[in-house]
Amino acid sequence: MARPKPLFRRVAIVGFGLIGSSVARVMRRDGLAGEIVACDASAEARARVLALGIADRAVASPAAAVRGADLVMLCTPVRSFGAIGAAMARGLSKGAIVSDVGSVKGAVVEALAPHIPKGVHLVPGHPIAGTENSGPDAGFAELFQGRWCVLTPPEGASPRAVARVAEFWRRAGMEIATMSPAHHDRVLAITSHVPHLIAYTIVSTVSDLEETMRAEVIKFAASGFRDFTRVAGSDPTMWRDIFLSNRDAVLEMTGRLYEDIALLQKAIRHGDGDTLHRVFSRSRRVRRGIVQAKQA
Amino acid sequence: MARPKPLFRRVAIVGFGLIGSSVARVMRRDGLAGEIVACDASAEARARVLALGIADRAVASPAAAVRGADLVMLCTPVRSFGAIGAAMARGLSKGAIVSDVGSVKGAVVEALAPHIPKGVHLVPGHPIAGTENSGPDAGFAELFQGRWCVLTPPEGASPRAVARVAEFWRRAGMEIATMSPAHHDRVLAITSHVPHLIAYTIVSTVSDLEETMRAEVIKFAASGFRDFTRVAGSDPTMWRDIFLSNRDAVLEMTGRLYEDIALLQKAIRHGDGDTLHRVFSRSRRVRRGIVQAKQA
Repeated sequence: MARPKPLFRRVAIVGFGLIGSSVARVMRRDGLAGEIVACDASAEARARVLALGIADRAVASPAAAVRGADLVMLCTPVRSFGAIGAAMARGLSKGAIVSDVGSVKGAVVEALAPHIPKGVHLVPGHPIAGTENSGPDAGFAELFQGRWCVLTPPEGASPRAVARVAEFWRRAGMEIATMSPAHHDRVLAITSHVPHLIAYTIVSTVSDLEETMRAEVIKFAASGFRDFTRVAGSDPTMWRDIFLSNRDAVLEMTGRLYEDIALLQKAIRHGDGDTLHRVFSRSRRVRRGIVQAKQA
Repeated sequence: MARPKPLFRRVAIVGFGLIGSSVARVMRRDGLAGEIVACDASAEARARVLALGIADRAVASPAAAVRGADLVMLCTPVRSFGAIGAAMARGLSKGAIVSDVGSVKGAVVEALAPHIPKGVHLVPGHPIAGTENSGPDAGFAELFQGRWCVLTPPEGASPRAVARVAEFWRRAGMEIATMSPAHHDRVLAITSHVPHLIAYTIVSTVSDLEETMRAEVIKFAASGFRDFTRVAGSDPTMWRDIFLSNRDAVLEMTGRLYEDIALLQKAIRHGDGDTLHRVFSRSRRVRRGIVQAKQA
């Protein structure tokens, strides 16, 4: 029996970290790409990708990487998208799809869109999946299984291009949602960006404690703290870029969180147990909704 | 071969929630108690305990429960310790040990100590273990395995009484640390109490979002938010009591956290990527220390 035709003839993956290398592994596992071209600025990462056998070629130049590709997937920290867009523009083929995996969509589309030539389809996406590990070795094909992928196609995007990107993520095991970039950025600010900000901060606060305290905090970290701070092990460049690119939504949600913490602080200071109990009971109900949503 | 003599002749466990019922299960599994007397104010909980077979008798009155017990273990929310101490005092036998599992130690010892008659040993403790579930059915004997138990014996405590309590927790699978109540309360404020406060708050902030946003936050909660908010499902009464009983340390640590969040907020507002990258890199190093401490 003949092998089925791959979903894409040639795929260029720009940035081979956790997500980029996981995308390549899915493509390899399921034979979704005729050829995979890796693009990474780091010579070490390129050598690793070839050693791992998860790409057919590895190049440093975005323009060279995207030449002849029918899918280009940007998997670098989001603040690099403007520069990469400019660098790859002349290499893009007519009819190609440019997509990405960035955790912020508004600023990303703004930075990338001006570099996309006529006849090339921009289909921004965000597979909501990850671990706190980084680099080409951290990736694995099952990373996306059972998670959501949000697509934020611009108005007038080609339905066929959107459908092809969606089909790739479905093959990776994801469910697909579509929304506006602005809405995506507000939802992610509160579900992901602000929690990361808090986790980074609380670990930073611990670093400033006197030494004996710090040693014991680390010793007793199993008391929930360890899980709470897991995300603080994530890549600093990636997260710097996310916060700078989603500034308004992050600051708005942090502001709301502040108000709510202040309320509880005041209740603690004044011994107001009723307020604490009411807020905690309500949070427990919402938390149960979250657990049920996952089960449904 | 004769069955080895149990560690305690009669154990009274006051409060049969997650921890109390797990303590009883360990005692049963390893034959550590000649008799287990359950004490719980709730008739429903008492019936459940007997149905589960994890106690020999179940009573409502603390004074009746502790009569003839050589170990009394308080497993109720910490703000109840004063009242329970007063209620059980006349039932306590000479030579008995009174211990507890409360997440706060300073205020707890203060509330309980005045009710402990001469000749009875007070050995406060805190097994740092738990899940977000509550009630007698939530307990399991393996809950304590591989975790730390902190003992905070008052000055002049009987070394033999302390050793017997430590021996019980070791049989439950725990490692033992000893420190002052005040030090315990500061360490737990930052590793456990403040993270819980933040988790409760962020879920509460989500509840206040407009409805479509809230629905999508719940839908996409798998993006780290779900794990982050796990602790917000914990028992509201227990946590109300913890915050009211560890007020000073919680407010101090929350204040420190505020300062650090403010620093990052300002960096985000002003596009100061260097500060963000520096703080995130430092947090990642500390986080790696936490992971290694667990592995060592």
